[in-house]
Amino acid sequence: MAGPGIQPNQTANTVKTIEWTPEGIRLIDQRLLPLREEYLLCRTYHEVAEAIRSMAVRGAPAIGVTAAMGIALGVRQSQATDRDALKAEFRQITETLAATRPTAVNLFWAIRRMSELFDGLMKKKASIATVRTKLEQEAQRILEEDIAANKALGGHGASLIPNGKTVMTHCNAGALATAGYGTALGVIRSAIAGGKNVDVLSLETRPFLQGARLTAWELQKDGIPTTLISDSMAGHFLHSGRIGCVVVGADRIAANGDVANKIGTYSVAVLAKENGVPFYVAAPLSTLDLDIASGESIPIEQRAASEVTSIQGVRIAPEGIAVFNPAFDVTPHSYVSAIITERGVVRAPYLESLQKLKNQQ
Amino acid sequence: MAGPGIQPNQTANTVKTIEWTPEGIRLIDQRLLPLREEYLLCRTYHEVAEAIRSMAVRGAPAIGVTAAMGIALGVRQSQATDRDALKAEFRQITETLAATRPTAVNLFWAIRRMSELFDGLMKKKASIATVRTKLEQEAQRILEEDIAANKALGGHGASLIPNGKTVMTHCNAGALATAGYGTALGVIRSAIAGGKNVDVLSLETRPFLQGARLTAWELQKDGIPTTLISDSMAGHFLHSGRIGCVVVGADRIAANGDVANKIGTYSVAVLAKENGVPFYVAAPLSTLDLDIASGESIPIEQRAASEVTSIQGVRIAPEGIAVFNPAFDVTPHSYVSAIITERGVVRAPYLESLQKLKNQQ
Repeated sequence: MAGPGIQPNQTANTVKTIEWTPEGIRLIDQRLLPLREEYLLCRTYHEVAEAIRSMAVRGAPAIGVTAAMGIALGVRQSQATDRDALKAEFRQITETLAATRPTAVNLFWAIRRMSELFDGLMKKKASIATVRTKLEQEAQRILEEDIAANKALGGHGASLIPNGKTVMTHCNAGALATAGYGTALGVIRSAIAGGKNVDVLSLETRPFLQGARLTAWELQKDGIPTTLISDSMAGHFLHSGRIGCVVVGADRIAANGDVANKIGTYSVAVLAKENGVPFYVAAPLSTLDLDIASGESIPIEQRAASEVTSIQGVRIAPEGIAVFNPAFDVTPHSYVSAIITERGVVRAPYLESLQKLKNQQ
Repeated sequence: MAGPGIQPNQTANTVKTIEWTPEGIRLIDQRLLPLREEYLLCRTYHEVAEAIRSMAVRGAPAIGVTAAMGIALGVRQSQATDRDALKAEFRQITETLAATRPTAVNLFWAIRRMSELFDGLMKKKASIATVRTKLEQEAQRILEEDIAANKALGGHGASLIPNGKTVMTHCNAGALATAGYGTALGVIRSAIAGGKNVDVLSLETRPFLQGARLTAWELQKDGIPTTLISDSMAGHFLHSGRIGCVVVGADRIAANGDVANKIGTYSVAVLAKENGVPFYVAAPLSTLDLDIASGESIPIEQRAASEVTSIQGVRIAPEGIAVFNPAFDVTPHSYVSAIITERGVVRAPYLESLQKLKNQQ
């Protein structure tokens, strides 16, 4: 358990998940953490797309920010000398980035936001130089807004975290999954900053091990007491009475409050409910997809078998074994105690509460 | 899905999990599978104890058989020339073996059975040569009875397996976890041998990966269609409608039907119940511990942090991170649809049905 008065270092300030630099987009390479802290420089939008696809950068909000920057980078490097050529190239860029990963809606949200700005500038017959500048500024604004949203939702969510208990989290919804500060981990950071005595139980999150590799690393850097367990242990600890609540992030939230998030989230939600432990989802509004009625319509990415049969290049299963590797699952809204956003905390009935939230200005 | 008429090769006949040889006890080294199929020769009872402790041999019935053989080996190698010295040494041997792993009751069951035989021979003032022979014969009998029990319980359980659906299993309750044929996997083998069209979804079972390394290997060798998934995917697939039932083994079953089994079993049981999928436990009578009222009293082994932070020697978590590593959990009897034993299938109320089963001759 955390002692009172722990002052977490601000990982959000010390590790930059995504950064726009004169040479290109600089990403902390999340495939190498925690063994190696190396940065990847994406010099073209194709390299940005590959970084998203290969999960060098991952986490729904981080993917959105990275895609926005990828668009700005692509337009900056465009050889187009007239607007029609630029439009064609813009479409090429956005299609390439949209094809990287299907589930996290923040990717499509960021692409739409950048596209709307681009279309407006085209209508206004802005110069190519102006378009470049405006897109770079917009991508930077999306990054800054994401950090601000995380800090705001952290503040709203902090009151939900019980004092003196353990918080369970799955995957990594931290500074590494966002432009900084984090969603689920932002809520935990805010609770601790507000004086609460909290420790964290991090599920390792097979197959990609975001919990073992990223959440454990990020919270350890912040001095937040964290214990790592296998996903198979979630039920045992939720049954033990020591867990005050579960907080996770989200990749897409449907209009009825169904939540697509990292594979394993649904299991944790069911086990939490069965044991009377509140289950909270922390996500910015950019993760809401109110055009989709329920989780059943959310596309679930299937990833390579090798993520399951090998760990860090070491084979753990017999050659030739069949594998399923869905990267996400859907948690029906009936298991979700509350959704924490930058505009406040909403509860069931989500169809009404989410719509109302989205309509607020 | 399996095609009809698949004839599984009998792993039980081709892989010998445990074998008494003139040089010592020969075990397939389950730490190295599936990458290397190597055998470990334990030349002393201390080496047998270390093989159990390090999980070169694992699985509740296999541990029981191995311990019985370890006792016979220890007595064979004893330098004692009188019965009092042999008695002292016998106690040393059984205490060493009993201290290896606390949860699987088959270990203590086998030690008690060998001890009762030994005590009887001591009372009858049998010669040391006779004691050696009788103990070796008894250990061999325990091995043969275990295979027979698995085949019998497989036969009883086969009728519970729905035709044309997928069976989910956790950990390895197969030929490798027993003297041969397997408990949970024995039920699946019997269902297929009886003409049912069944395929298997094997949970990888972190941290020790018995599902990925052992169940996948064993079923693949038998030609039984098997798909490997991470533990985090259990809920997603139980919710999908494709799973006909779950079948797992057990390390200890209390009088009220509570089941201690590999960590993660409780989670699967809750998720199965939530989705209306039957959850079956397959175990021989040697796994029943009717002296224990409920699962709350079953000691849960805590294992080394390195099993969680490293996989096959590759580090997957930051240095210095705290870890919990309970090797087992307890599934309350309310989640157990039926318990499959060599004397038949029993259902709730387990307090009555298990006692009745045990009293049968």
